[in-house]
Amino acid sequence: MINRLIEKIQKTDAPIVVGLDPKLAFVPAHIKKAAFSEFGETLEGAAEAIWQFNKAIVDATCDLIPAVKPQIAMYEQYGIPGLIAFEKTVAYCHEKDLVVIGDIKRGDIGSTSESYAVAHLGEVSVGENTFRPFDEDFATVNPYLGSDGVNPFIDICKKENKGIFVLVKTSNPSSGEFQDRLIDGKPLYEHVAEKVAAWGEDCMGDAYSNVGAVVGATYPEIGKVLRKVMPKTMILVPGYGAQGGTGADLVHYFNEDGLGAIVNSSRGIIAAYKKDEYAKFGEEAFADASRQAVLDMKEDINQARG
Amino acid sequence: MINRLIEKIQKTDAPIVVGLDPKLAFVPAHIKKAAFSEFGETLEGAAEAIWQFNKAIVDATCDLIPAVKPQIAMYEQYGIPGLIAFEKTVAYCHEKDLVVIGDIKRGDIGSTSESYAVAHLGEVSVGENTFRPFDEDFATVNPYLGSDGVNPFIDICKKENKGIFVLVKTSNPSSGEFQDRLIDGKPLYEHVAEKVAAWGEDCMGDAYSNVGAVVGATYPEIGKVLRKVMPKTMILVPGYGAQGGTGADLVHYFNEDGLGAIVNSSRGIIAAYKKDEYAKFGEEAFADASRQAVLDMKEDINQARG
Repeated sequence: MINRLIEKIQKTDAPIVVGLDPKLAFVPAHIKKAAFSEFGETLEGAAEAIWQFNKAIVDATCDLIPAVKPQIAMYEQYGIPGLIAFEKTVAYCHEKDLVVIGDIKRGDIGSTSESYAVAHLGEVSVGENTFRPFDEDFATVNPYLGSDGVNPFIDICKKENKGIFVLVKTSNPSSGEFQDRLIDGKPLYEHVAEKVAAWGEDCMGDAYSNVGAVVGATYPEIGKVLRKVMPKTMILVPGYGAQGGTGADLVHYFNEDGLGAIVNSSRGIIAAYKKDEYAKFGEEAFADASRQAVLDMKEDINQARG
Repeated sequence: MINRLIEKIQKTDAPIVVGLDPKLAFVPAHIKKAAFSEFGETLEGAAEAIWQFNKAIVDATCDLIPAVKPQIAMYEQYGIPGLIAFEKTVAYCHEKDLVVIGDIKRGDIGSTSESYAVAHLGEVSVGENTFRPFDEDFATVNPYLGSDGVNPFIDICKKENKGIFVLVKTSNPSSGEFQDRLIDGKPLYEHVAEKVAAWGEDCMGDAYSNVGAVVGATYPEIGKVLRKVMPKTMILVPGYGAQGGTGADLVHYFNEDGLGAIVNSSRGIIAAYKKDEYAKFGEEAFADASRQAVLDMKEDINQARG
């Protein structure tokens, strides 16, 4: 799957992923109105609103981008109807030939991790039949439980030609509380990065591994170090835009081949119409604002790639 | 919520939680047959089978135990129908007056963590209405992202009188890869435990905090240390039984008040009928085997409490 992601990045010339994290507050009034008039102010109504919102944004941007990253928490908060909207969003993005990174940050041990891997990347058997429950292409994974937590995901990745991104250094202000603590003279995130590189050796695509890493845009000096610790690892970079990261910060996240990183923006793209810069589009044309925001982000990031 | 959990532990005299982790392989043939004949060998059929299985075990054990811990991965692997079975299981356990610990191991940052907290412990607004999506009483939380990841859960716990259990030292063989690494002379799990104790100060019940910790039964010497680092923290203990922990290992997980720990068993209870010890019950009477296994576990654990 990493080969397909790289092909898509090269084809679109855009190492960009659009984060489909549809808070109801981002959804324009006319979409909410239509959804609520059909389903009421219910979980079903909320789910319909975020699904229609996603669909419009995907339609307006899918030719420009290689991948999307739906954040499952935003759907899970609307219960079962929300998760149905997640499932529909994943399926629709596949129809549009996008790579789907499920931002699920799951992580457990043994057969429990395997169940998460099956749920999101694999297939489950029921009697004689098999089903692909959520069927993303990549999933994000939390490393705190060690190899026992990650290996079941890797096994499914090998079987299904899928991939994962393991949290290494997250973009949030308090990420250093544990991740930056020194162990044998090196921060924890570097130890995790070494493990990611080792796990990745066993699950290679052509130039990059199906085991990627998450490294926030908000710590560019750390990104520079981690690029070297994990040379064959695709880095998924959150924290661009709304969280403060800029294109110029990201120079060292890329390898000399101009590859090796894919930068996520969520709010900056999907709620672009709410920013002064794109206000001229107006609320009704929110998806056009998102398209323009993708074009602008692409330019900003590609300057960093040199 | 921690007060309620403690009351229930005292009333049942059983610091025990039954892990409702229903793999299809544990479900007796007659239940699967009935479910598949109604819904086919489909995700709906699997979900019906695990729901009927759970219901029978809850009916057979609910007077003996304070709490259950459904592991959401086992439901998530059956997609939307599986998650509906999770939701039904939580609601049914509430009807039976059980405390429900959602073993979800979620963890993200800021508004994303808040969305998970809302999904599992809180309520979500849609227009004028509010809904409680999954509505567990406690949730397990991963600490790797630091305070930004945990505080949104704590905020919801305060508002809703709910609780969390933060992963400190997990029961799996490779948990030490990161958790045991020394930072300033102390293992990472001890640093996490100190944070748990500090987070907990801000969210106290009477004698214990609504912020609990997960410490595996498989590392009793570590449990002894962590008991002292987190004196007011309820410790949720996985790894008893099938993973190798015994009652005698757990002496030091309890405080002098005989409280402070609640021990989970999943397979050892729900699949008891498959063990030689309980084979006499037979497959049809699997729930009676589970009841006997709870009684035996209670005796084993209470010896450790002294």
